[in-house]
Amino acid sequence: MVAAQAGVGRPRLAPRQREGASAREEILDAAAELFSVQGYTATSTRAIAESVGIRQASLYYHFSSKEQILAELLVGTVLPSLDVAAVLADSPQTAPARIWALAAFDVRLLCSGRWNLGALYLLPELRPANLAPFYTERQRLRAGYGALIDEGVTHGSFVVDDAATATDLVFGLVESVVLVRQDRGTLDPGRFAPAIADGCLRLLSCTGRRLAAAHRQGAALLADL
Amino acid sequence: MVAAQAGVGRPRLAPRQREGASAREEILDAAAELFSVQGYTATSTRAIAESVGIRQASLYYHFSSKEQILAELLVGTVLPSLDVAAVLADSPQTAPARIWALAAFDVRLLCSGRWNLGALYLLPELRPANLAPFYTERQRLRAGYGALIDEGVTHGSFVVDDAATATDLVFGLVESVVLVRQDRGTLDPGRFAPAIADGCLRLLSCTGRRLAAAHRQGAALLADL
Repeated sequence: MVAAQAGVGRPRLAPRQREGASAREEILDAAAELFSVQGYTATSTRAIAESVGIRQASLYYHFSSKEQILAELLVGTVLPSLDVAAVLADSPQTAPARIWALAAFDVRLLCSGRWNLGALYLLPELRPANLAPFYTERQRLRAGYGALIDEGVTHGSFVVDDAATATDLVFGLVESVVLVRQDRGTLDPGRFAPAIADGCLRLLSCTGRRLAAAHRQGAALLADL
Repeated sequence: MVAAQAGVGRPRLAPRQREGASAREEILDAAAELFSVQGYTATSTRAIAESVGIRQASLYYHFSSKEQILAELLVGTVLPSLDVAAVLADSPQTAPARIWALAAFDVRLLCSGRWNLGALYLLPELRPANLAPFYTERQRLRAGYGALIDEGVTHGSFVVDDAATATDLVFGLVESVVLVRQDRGTLDPGRFAPAIADGCLRLLSCTGRRLAAAHRQGAALLADL
C-alpha cells in the first residue's frame, strides 16, 4: 500500500532509521520525539520527514497536517485504555476490582513508550478542530471511570460526597503520572501502576481488606486482558 | 524606579491596558496570556511588549529574555505554597491537619489567576538553565509534602507502603488540578481545594473520624494563614 513500506516507488532519501513497522509508524515515532524534545510549534513537517529520511511530500501521503500527526499520537494515549474499559464494563467482577484493573492498565500505558506523549495534552496552542476526536475519546475514558464509580457507589463499595468530583480526582490521579514522568524522564510502571490503582480505591473510601481483595482481583483481571 | 511605573521617562506607545500595579506586572500578565493562548515558542518578546503597549526595549529593561519571564511566572505558581509550607513546618498542629492545609492552599493557588500557568510545567521545550530556580523551588515544595508525610508516618497518623511513592501520589493529586483546569477552563477552588485535601489524607490511609478532625483543624489553620 505505501511506497516506503512495500519497498516500491520512490527510493528513500536515507536508510530506515526509525522504530515502527511501516513508514506511517516511523513518521509517528519521529514526530513523537521532535514534539517531546523541541516542542510542537517549533517542529515542522519538513523536520519530521527529514528525521525519518523521507521527502516532505511522502509524509503528506500519510498525514494531511502536523495537527493530524499529533491527533493520532494523542489518541494512542487513550484508545487502548478505552478498549480495556469496554471489556471491563461487561465483566462480572466488582466495581473496585475493575477500577483497579483500569487504572493500573492506564498508568502502564502512560508510563510506556519512549516519549511522554501525555505531556502534550497540556500544549497551550492546542485547541484545533483536528484534535476533537482525541478530546472526545478522552471524555469517553473519563466517563468509563465515572460509570464504574457510580456502580460502586450504588453497591455500597464506594462512599463519596459527590461522584463527579470523585471522578475528577480518580482520573486526575491516574493522569498525574504524566507530570511525575516529566520530572523523572522514566517511571517504573511496576511500582506506579499498583500504587496508583490502590490510591484510586482509597480516594473512593475503599480501604483495608476490601482494598486488598480488589487489588488481588484487579491484578488477575489485568493479567487476563 | 521604573519609568512606566513612576510616570516619567519615555511615554508609553498606548494607554495602560493590562492588569498589574507596575510595568513589570503588566508584562507578566501579557506574557501569561500569550503563552497560555498561543504557546510559548510562538510568542515573541515583541508580541508581549505590543500587548502591554510598550516598546520591546522597555521590556528588556525589566526582563533579560522570554525565558526569564516564563521562569518568573512559573516560580509564582510555587513560591506562595512554599511560604505556607515553611509556616506549617513550625506549627504545633498534627501532620494530617498541616498536609490538609498545605494541599488546600496549593490547590487554591493553582486554581487562581486568569491563566492556567501550571500547564506550562509540561512544555516540552523547557529545560533551559534559566528555569533551574523554578525546578529547585518545586522540588523544595515536594520535599515539604514529603517531610509532613514522614512525620505523620512516624506518629502513626499515616500508613504507607513506601513514603517516596506516597509523596509522588499526594503531590501528583494536588497538581492534577492543572490537568482538570485545562479541560474546563476554570475550576471552583471552593469545591476542589477541600476535596483534594481530603483525597491526600485518604491516599495516606487517614480516614473516618481522623480525616474529619484533620479537615476541621486544617481549614482553621488555612483561615489563619
